[in-house]
Amino acid sequence: MFAIKAARAFTCRPGIARIEGAYHGAYDWAETGQAVSPAMWNDPPQSLAVPAYRGMPPSVGEEVTVIRFNDIADLERRIAAAAPSLACILIDPMPSRAGLIAPEPSFFAAVEAIAKQYGILIVADEVLNLRQSYLGASARYGLHPDLIAAGKIIGGGFPVGAIGGRKEVMRVFASDSGKPLLPQGGTFSANPVSMVAGRVAMEAMTDGAFASLESLGDRIRAGLRREIERHGAAFSVTGAASLFRIHPKGKQPTDFREAYLAPGEAELMGRLSRHFLNCGILLPNGAAACLSTAMTTADGDAVISAFADFLSILEATPTEAGM
Amino acid sequence: MFAIKAARAFTCRPGIARIEGAYHGAYDWAETGQAVSPAMWNDPPQSLAVPAYRGMPPSVGEEVTVIRFNDIADLERRIAAAAPSLACILIDPMPSRAGLIAPEPSFFAAVEAIAKQYGILIVADEVLNLRQSYLGASARYGLHPDLIAAGKIIGGGFPVGAIGGRKEVMRVFASDSGKPLLPQGGTFSANPVSMVAGRVAMEAMTDGAFASLESLGDRIRAGLRREIERHGAAFSVTGAASLFRIHPKGKQPTDFREAYLAPGEAELMGRLSRHFLNCGILLPNGAAACLSTAMTTADGDAVISAFADFLSILEATPTEAGM
Repeated sequence: MFAIKAARAFTCRPGIARIEGAYHGAYDWAETGQAVSPAMWNDPPQSLAVPAYRGMPPSVGEEVTVIRFNDIADLERRIAAAAPSLACILIDPMPSRAGLIAPEPSFFAAVEAIAKQYGILIVADEVLNLRQSYLGASARYGLHPDLIAAGKIIGGGFPVGAIGGRKEVMRVFASDSGKPLLPQGGTFSANPVSMVAGRVAMEAMTDGAFASLESLGDRIRAGLRREIERHGAAFSVTGAASLFRIHPKGKQPTDFREAYLAPGEAELMGRLSRHFLNCGILLPNGAAACLSTAMTTADGDAVISAFADFLSILEATPTEAGM
Repeated sequence: MFAIKAARAFTCRPGIARIEGAYHGAYDWAETGQAVSPAMWNDPPQSLAVPAYRGMPPSVGEEVTVIRFNDIADLERRIAAAAPSLACILIDPMPSRAGLIAPEPSFFAAVEAIAKQYGILIVADEVLNLRQSYLGASARYGLHPDLIAAGKIIGGGFPVGAIGGRKEVMRVFASDSGKPLLPQGGTFSANPVSMVAGRVAMEAMTDGAFASLESLGDRIRAGLRREIERHGAAFSVTGAASLFRIHPKGKQPTDFREAYLAPGEAELMGRLSRHFLNCGILLPNGAAACLSTAMTTADGDAVISAFADFLSILEATPTEAGM
């Protein structure tokens, strides 16, 4: 919310562009366009800025431009159409709910070029993906955002959110010459326990810790793919670093629409999550699974083994009892 | 944010009404209309839905109706004008930044009557004022809201926010028959430490704890007023229960506009806060001072004594050096 507001305060423009299907929290402009479905993308006249809840002000949808991840033509066409009113392009470098799909380097280059052309800021939502490297996800994938939103791991287990960015942009929060362009504060600000826990967690997240997590992630992703191949199963795996996502798709999805779950696929993923739960593993359904520094290679192998068992059960019993 | 969204999801209307000058956090619709100043209220053609930051979408201001606390005629006129698009009246039973002024019972009765007449929900922001009694502030002042927003004390020192309300309204969050009308969740939801600390804090806040806090608040407010009278100083005190606010006004303000600080008054309050800081007491400037169960009557007397010293210094040195 404050990253979007900062982009508005800096550019004096109200609108935002965001990626189809990506999750960016509950701020109205950020959530509009998450719940895009095939009925919408198959019916071009409809706006993709779909309301996130009943009764959402219609004005919000008019201020949001929804663009497709990794689709340069779509990006250029939609940004050009809305440019004069756009404060920022809000982008998660590897959007979890939109498929946890790696960005094409050419896509991020196109995002940067068009943002520069029209004076639009780039806001990287790294609330989840900051964990992709010591310097975060934008740095890993060659994106140069004006602002970065962070959360989750920087709180060491306590509720936290933060934004950072270029000094010139962050000056919208400055109060050294009177009331700031964008006042910031409130009940949730500067909680001492979150601040201390976050600092300790960040100090523990050394280069070596990121390297270990990455190596565990590589082991799990490779193991899951090996089991898919061994069983000839119609599944695929996406993700990087300490994140992975299993898709009930023989062809690895390259964007949100390809990753979108048809009703039968959603049912299958529900069954997969239940199987993992029975094995003592909490596997998010429709979002990234996350590894932590407390996990060992044995934990990683347990994930692979649970998935292998699931594929065997699936071969023997393609449909669950009662379904 | 979620209380406002719930009111929208329930009523299928986008707009909100809120009290001039009151603080309700950083959600755009909730903060629009906080920074009302004399330049605006003296120039009637201007909307009171003043943007909270540069670049705020103008649509937000069009969806917000600003009403005056304790002013029934203003309430009835403005609500009637905006009624078809209003989801809720957002109201803090004793808005801290709008003056920490007690509600007139007839005002709350009028709020309830007009809300009922037009099918508008009442959302009580008790993030601060829940601490006014065991049952909260609405109960204390005879307001019957449809939804209540809570925070601060319910987290036992950890970041937290919550809403509750009538079952019929809260059903907008229900997922028992598919996707809810208003999905709710996210990075900050259900933090285990906040939940445990909040429960322990709430268990400690017995009827007796509230009575002790109230008695300490009464002692401080009476003491401050005694000093004002003794010094014949142009100050007044508002507040209730464990909250108080000192105003640099000889006549006790009855609404936000009367409590509004002219430049010289703001300077004086800055001086008062610095004096308290030098005495080891953090006195919020322009908002309610809060007592806690850890404070003793000696702490309360230290507040009174610091204020008495300030009034003596003020008599001797009406203007600070360098000011």
